[in-house]
Amino acid sequence: MAIHPLWNNYPEIQQELIETQKIMTKSVNIRNKEMTAALQLFFQSGGKLLRPAYFLLFTAFGDVPSEQRKYQYAASLEILHAATLIHDDIIDDSPVRRDTPSIQATYGKDIAVYAGDFLFTVYFHLLAVSTKDPATLEINALNMKKILIGELDQMHLRNNPKITIKEYIQHIQGKTAQLFQLSCYQGAHFSGASLRVQILAQRIGYQIGMAFQILDDVLDFSSTEADLHKPILEDIRNGNYTLPLIYAMAENRQAFKILESSEELSDADVQQIVANINKYQGLEKSKKLAQRYTNKALKEIDKLPNIPEKLIIKTITKELLERLD
Amino acid sequence: MAIHPLWNNYPEIQQELIETQKIMTKSVNIRNKEMTAALQLFFQSGGKLLRPAYFLLFTAFGDVPSEQRKYQYAASLEILHAATLIHDDIIDDSPVRRDTPSIQATYGKDIAVYAGDFLFTVYFHLLAVSTKDPATLEINALNMKKILIGELDQMHLRNNPKITIKEYIQHIQGKTAQLFQLSCYQGAHFSGASLRVQILAQRIGYQIGMAFQILDDVLDFSSTEADLHKPILEDIRNGNYTLPLIYAMAENRQAFKILESSEELSDADVQQIVANINKYQGLEKSKKLAQRYTNKALKEIDKLPNIPEKLIIKTITKELLERLD
Repeated sequence: MAIHPLWNNYPEIQQELIETQKIMTKSVNIRNKEMTAALQLFFQSGGKLLRPAYFLLFTAFGDVPSEQRKYQYAASLEILHAATLIHDDIIDDSPVRRDTPSIQATYGKDIAVYAGDFLFTVYFHLLAVSTKDPATLEINALNMKKILIGELDQMHLRNNPKITIKEYIQHIQGKTAQLFQLSCYQGAHFSGASLRVQILAQRIGYQIGMAFQILDDVLDFSSTEADLHKPILEDIRNGNYTLPLIYAMAENRQAFKILESSEELSDADVQQIVANINKYQGLEKSKKLAQRYTNKALKEIDKLPNIPEKLIIKTITKELLERLD
Repeated sequence: MAIHPLWNNYPEIQQELIETQKIMTKSVNIRNKEMTAALQLFFQSGGKLLRPAYFLLFTAFGDVPSEQRKYQYAASLEILHAATLIHDDIIDDSPVRRDTPSIQATYGKDIAVYAGDFLFTVYFHLLAVSTKDPATLEINALNMKKILIGELDQMHLRNNPKITIKEYIQHIQGKTAQLFQLSCYQGAHFSGASLRVQILAQRIGYQIGMAFQILDDVLDFSSTEADLHKPILEDIRNGNYTLPLIYAMAENRQAFKILESSEELSDADVQQIVANINKYQGLEKSKKLAQRYTNKALKEIDKLPNIPEKLIIKTITKELLERLD
């Protein structure tokens, strides 16, 4: 069970992520062995474990001693993330996720529906055993609701070339920033860090999440399949019109009138759209907005108390969010 | 928003179910108006609201005064049930549910996946606001996990003519009895009823759930579409081999060897199977087992303290579980 190389230079957090992954693996060990195997394979397919990692890093700012419950909570964050990924792959008909076939591609939609549902229940159970504080559970429930509302927004906006920047921002807030924000905040909260650090953590998580999603959307246009470990140009084929396209359309709506047609896009159409996105600076402008979120995050990180984990958070965040340079 | 006629003779519980339904309706009011409309229509399509009703009836055995939280909890039970129904209809490709087209038939699989997911988050949120007790939340989380494991069992056993009675019992325990058991138990627990009543409630809910599911499976063979408000003979076409068939196969496996073939069943095949189930007493034996669970439930109900709700529980349970006579 190898942990993503992103953490190679940080043996302590690496060790903590191994503990987290052990709990994830164990939590899906049920009498349906096919489901257990499918989910364990999915967990081992090399995600960066960013959400548990940020959570764990932020627990360092408090003074409550480390214990098993911490890893259960960390695992719950990644499990919730995995559940939404598995269901997203149904909606998007994605054949590949993290270099391996997606659950729906391997086992079909039916198993993918229940696999995601089952992970929701595992998430809920890990949360309930790790958090004995009803207020925390309520925050988590609200958070999960907001994530789903973000997913619904995305579906609602699908194939709509009139999507605005505001609508895009609103839906990635729910879909992605929400869980990064919660991960950082809960780390600080869980460990009894000061209220000031808790608020900083929340802001940092939000900015990281926003930058991360915008970059993810940029990479879908600018990367290669080999680098990205998943198919590229998927968003546009699926009717998910993301920021690079929205920016470019704002410059010249006429250049993208093919999107008004109800016919499926040919490969040539997609190439033409990508060329036009480049022509109208869609990628550059998106990278600039991502950089603004990144800069804000780094500025807030600088305000954290000076403990070793602060530097790790800063280095990792830069590595993660400046991967385009 | 009419409540199912089952409750016509009980104005008090009818009123409580109206309160419950108000919370359900409100809880899905989000900015995606299409989703709100789809779910509100689903809630109004005439379910019996059995789970919240049993919960509410059992709250009468305690002495904690009634309050808003009670209806939030009651609503959460029905919302969880609705979420699993919506996802089941994806798996079973069901065109109709409660006389109206299923969500997946109307809006497609994608919306049905997110509609169910969204209801899981609503369930979780209603639970978190209504229950301030971490132990209760843990019980609910475990319960939800067991329900999903029951669903997975069913999927795993699909198209397997070697399914045993034991396997059938195990999967309906999870799929159905679990939530009835929790509903009754939580009613008693929520209201501070005695431990004895809490344990009785749990047993009663379990027996009711088992009898209810077996009868549901019998009705799929013996009812008409008009009476059942959904298509009949669906289980067998979907490869869900239920108790009537399992009993009949135990008498004469040879008579059902068509099920060993991998080809889709023709209408004539299905009719032949139904004839053979009748011939080998599959329905009679199933009804007898259901009656045993019903009798046990009624016997336990008799042990409850003598308050007016006891008689309602008894009458309703008989009406519900003796609908074949």
